[in-house]
Amino acid sequence: MDYQKILDTIYEEMSYRDVTGKVASYIPELAKVDPKKFGMHLYCGEKQHYGFGDSEENFSVQSITKVFTLAMTMKIMGEDLWKRVDVEPSGNPFNSLTQLEQESGIPRNPFINAGALVISDILVDHLDNPKEDLLNFVRKITGDDDIHYDPTIAASEKSTGYRNIALANYMKALGNIKCDVDPILDFYFHQCSLAMSCKDLAKAFMIFANKGNILETGENVLKPEIVKRINALMQTCGFYDEAGEFSFEVGLPGKSGVGGGIVAIHPENYSVAVWSPILNPKGNSELGMKALERLTTLTGVSVF
Amino acid sequence: MDYQKILDTIYEEMSYRDVTGKVASYIPELAKVDPKKFGMHLYCGEKQHYGFGDSEENFSVQSITKVFTLAMTMKIMGEDLWKRVDVEPSGNPFNSLTQLEQESGIPRNPFINAGALVISDILVDHLDNPKEDLLNFVRKITGDDDIHYDPTIAASEKSTGYRNIALANYMKALGNIKCDVDPILDFYFHQCSLAMSCKDLAKAFMIFANKGNILETGENVLKPEIVKRINALMQTCGFYDEAGEFSFEVGLPGKSGVGGGIVAIHPENYSVAVWSPILNPKGNSELGMKALERLTTLTGVSVF
Amino acid sequence: MDYQKILDTIYEEMSYRDVTGKVASYIPELAKVDPKKFGMHLYCGEKQHYGFGDSEENFSVQSITKVFTLAMTMKIMGEDLWKRVDVEPSGNPFNSLTQLEQESGIPRNPFINAGALVISDILVDHLDNPKEDLLNFVRKITGDDDIHYDPTIAASEKSTGYRNIALANYMKALGNIKCDVDPILDFYFHQCSLAMSCKDLAKAFMIFANKGNILETGENVLKPEIVKRINALMQTCGFYDEAGEFSFEVGLPGKSGVGGGIVAIHPENYSVAVWSPILNPKGNSELGMKALERLTTLTGVSVF
Amino acid sequence: MDYQKILDTIYEEMSYRDVTGKVASYIPELAKVDPKKFGMHLYCGEKQHYGFGDSEENFSVQSITKVFTLAMTMKIMGEDLWKRVDVEPSGNPFNSLTQLEQESGIPRNPFINAGALVISDILVDHLDNPKEDLLNFVRKITGDDDIHYDPTIAASEKSTGYRNIALANYMKALGNIKCDVDPILDFYFHQCSLAMSCKDLAKAFMIFANKGNILETGENVLKPEIVKRINALMQTCGFYDEAGEFSFEVGLPGKSGVGGGIVAIHPENYSVAVWSPILNPKGNSELGMKALERLTTLTGVSVF
Repeated sequence: MDYQKILDTIYEEMSYRDVTGKVASYIPELAKVDPKKFGMHLYCGEKQHYGFGDSEENFSVQSITKVFTLAMTMKIMGEDLWKRVDVEPSGNPFNSLTQLEQESGIPRNPFINAGALVISDILVDHLDNPKEDLLNFVRKITGDDDIHYDPTIAASEKSTGYRNIALANYMKALGNIKCDVDPILDFYFHQCSLAMSCKDLAKAFMIFANKGNILETGENVLKPEIVKRINALMQTCGFYDEAGEFSFEVGLPGKSGVGGGIVAIHPENYSVAVWSPILNPKGNSELGMKALERLTTLTGVSVF
Repeated sequence: MDYQKILDTIYEEMSYRDVTGKVASYIPELAKVDPKKFGMHLYCGEKQHYGFGDSEENFSVQSITKVFTLAMTMKIMGEDLWKRVDVEPSGNPFNSLTQLEQESGIPRNPFINAGALVISDILVDHLDNPKEDLLNFVRKITGDDDIHYDPTIAASEKSTGYRNIALANYMKALGNIKCDVDPILDFYFHQCSLAMSCKDLAKAFMIFANKGNILETGENVLKPEIVKRINALMQTCGFYDEAGEFSFEVGLPGKSGVGGGIVAIHPENYSVAVWSPILNPKGNSELGMKALERLTTLTGVSVF
Repeated sequence: MDYQKILDTIYEEMSYRDVTGKVASYIPELAKVDPKKFGMHLYCGEKQHYGFGDSEENFSVQSITKVFTLAMTMKIMGEDLWKRVDVEPSGNPFNSLTQLEQESGIPRNPFINAGALVISDILVDHLDNPKEDLLNFVRKITGDDDIHYDPTIAASEKSTGYRNIALANYMKALGNIKCDVDPILDFYFHQCSLAMSCKDLAKAFMIFANKGNILETGENVLKPEIVKRINALMQTCGFYDEAGEFSFEVGLPGKSGVGGGIVAIHPENYSVAVWSPILNPKGNSELGMKALERLTTLTGVSVF
Repeated sequence: MDYQKILDTIYEEMSYRDVTGKVASYIPELAKVDPKKFGMHLYCGEKQHYGFGDSEENFSVQSITKVFTLAMTMKIMGEDLWKRVDVEPSGNPFNSLTQLEQESGIPRNPFINAGALVISDILVDHLDNPKEDLLNFVRKITGDDDIHYDPTIAASEKSTGYRNIALANYMKALGNIKCDVDPILDFYFHQCSLAMSCKDLAKAFMIFANKGNILETGENVLKPEIVKRINALMQTCGFYDEAGEFSFEVGLPGKSGVGGGIVAIHPENYSVAVWSPILNPKGNSELGMKALERLTTLTGVSVF
């Protein structure tokens, strides 16, 4: 399949498109991003990768890192993880406290903020240097040592992160947070601030399209059964309250972030990342969603 | 792949297994079913199909028919359907009224009862003989004219269906039901009473694994893009409040019914149906869920 | 105290006032009422009663009858009633199904629709002619045999009462309705259609300001402890989701109806009824609320 | 009326009574209180006051102080207060976050924790020394300079107050908290730790039974219209999710605390405080509720 040609078609189609949403403004730093940024990168292998636009420019990947921390936690905890977080779609906005109240502090899945905070708690509890370990994990699967947290973003998250502070304290009250709240939040805010490009993300997520192996080196990083489950979670829970819509329109497992990035994979075929900072009302990249829908429509292939 | 051998392994494994759930009792007729019934059928084509146990015995397929009525409605309504029903997982029990109250009468998806009642409303509105048309649709894709409603089950549904009566009237109050409530419910209760075997179901669902074509005749019944979307909906919404769990453990699009049936498909490979009447706390067949998890584990293949 | 002068002052003040709400339109018949109707009647005794405007014109008292049916039911059931309905404010709109779902079919109080339907169920279960008995009860405490249901209103309620049909069926599903749903709804829709004037209502409610005795005859109709409890319920639950506001602004036990009527009592002093069909966003008479606030402000006396 | 005799009767009756609840354990210090403590004090004036048991022993008055801080805030803010907190019963547990989520950060009333935190925010914002000012206010209306915070309780609240930290941060996220969260919580935890006896509380609350005047000195502390509204709020919202029950059984405006104290007033007659640390499932003193029900039953007088 001529992926470059398909990407070029998407780029052209999207250029005609009106967007109606807004750049994320809940932290001051994110609001400063140029709303016209647009890039996409599709990765099949070292010599077969395709892109357009701002696909090599770093942006704040935000919630997309939840997939990395989930993977690290599944390696540490195995099945015991599921006693503390569920695997069901939430049917609620990503930062809902109501769901926690109804379900006694057990987050619906690891991709809503509450779930990611439980994941943070586990990593802070088990690792001496969780921030460093996360960087190392991402650098390894991307094959790029030049990936960093953005300290300005991390500080901005912290200074306005009242809702996440509320979530962590609330789960502490309900008994589902073990460590002190402060280091958990520090890790969480740093994790959100990770800066990567579409090209980086596509390379990194290739392990989920390749049964847990790094494509270039063949090294196994995650067991295939862990990958199968992470992909299932991306499919049902990767897009906040719009997971059904993404599955319905795109038909691939994926994960979005409020920085405007979306990454998706087609198992045994490719991984693909797209970035456009303007978000739809449900908090997912408006152009990104559309670009991926066009990808599976033009290729005629999805997991379904 | 030697599917018969895999099925035989599953049959043997399941025979050692304790089950802890109960047969559905919300309608008196369902409670009479022998809890020991157990059958499974996997269909790759006319000459490649495999089964065990009670796979050719009819049972009440219940909510599995929601896939058929959805398909019929998508043919009639196209995209306009999605103004009246959403495509998101519910995060609530299958018969919740709370969700409707919060979302102004728009059901979260076509597979919760409220969504299926809107589907019924549309079919009653557009078709002269919706009950007959549904039978004809199912007979055609199954290639079997001997499929019927079970009038005893239908009457039992009607006599105790207070919650569905409540749902239909509530949506009528909220403006999302057009026809009179009585014929909608009559159609809905009949639809639930459809009697089919695992073998029938596996054959019928083959169209969803075969881009909308009847495998034997090659006749196209549903456009491929409709099939892609129905499969996406089965993946994210097919198991009430356990869709994430099914996706997580099994990794295939599927649909369950409180009669204890589950059907799932692996696009371009097979469709499979399993029946065991004992339900887990979330209303899905306990052995059926496990049997399908074993199937994708033993074959090593899922959509992820 | 010169109540007539105070009423005259209120009448004049209200005539200058802009109203911003709307007449109830949920049943076609109610929408036909002249929005300019305005009357008030305060009753201290046969020779001490005061009024203005349309205080002797009949209107649809709607939910105000819930106080009468509650009184009848407390006489029949005693404390056992409270196993089937609670005594807490609802914190939700008057016709919410969510609360029922969360609390297993036990309505929060007898004045929300769900609670009144349970009350209807009990009266239909215990009485041979509940509609006649309710009329007789109201006629007796009012001292007026010329009080009737309005059959046009009752029919209009029935033809559009989908939400009440939903509530009754839902509670039937949850096990808190004993009789068939149809006669319960027939009684309920008739009860809502009762036609009375402000003067009638003020006379009828005098029993709640007079320890359960009919003032003129001295006959005891309700035990004082029942009256104390009904007054407490009117105070905390008599105004849908605005009970706090009414208590806060007016400071008297009372009950409103969507026909635009409000009745309130000052124990051992007076009962008072007001009617103006234009409703505020929470479904209570906009001028009526204000008129009663002025009454307790101008008299300087409330229960607090 | 011979109040001492009535109190003695209550004391005797309660001594025979089984209690089934538990002492509050959500902060370690409260769990240490002797569950057998029991005292009651009724105050009509300097020379007419009556008590029994441990009525002069200090205990942690907890949420009862919310009435004092509300009074201080109403003096400062007037009607503007009601833009930031509502006056409706909550229909939810006292520390619910769900309600806040549904209603955009506006607490249902000033007596649930969220409402009291908004009150704290206002006092911290307007006063230089809010902790001192609260002490001074309480000392003045009680006529006793020997009233203090309990620093051990305050520290214990702080060390385990995750849910209140969550509430404050959540409302900050929703824009209904102006100051920094830390000083608000510091004030709030101190306020909860105020130590007073039944006798103190009865004297202090006499201003609410006496139109805002200190009975002994005649000094006006609160305008009568403020008192009317505070009493209305105590009636409809003073007992968490059991306000209806208290109104129904007792029929007086009142306020409870998880320390096991309850205070109630009968306007123009008396104020009364009771203390017994064992709480019913809804968090109100089990014996205290019963003792007050007996008081209005034996005197035959309530506001209804």
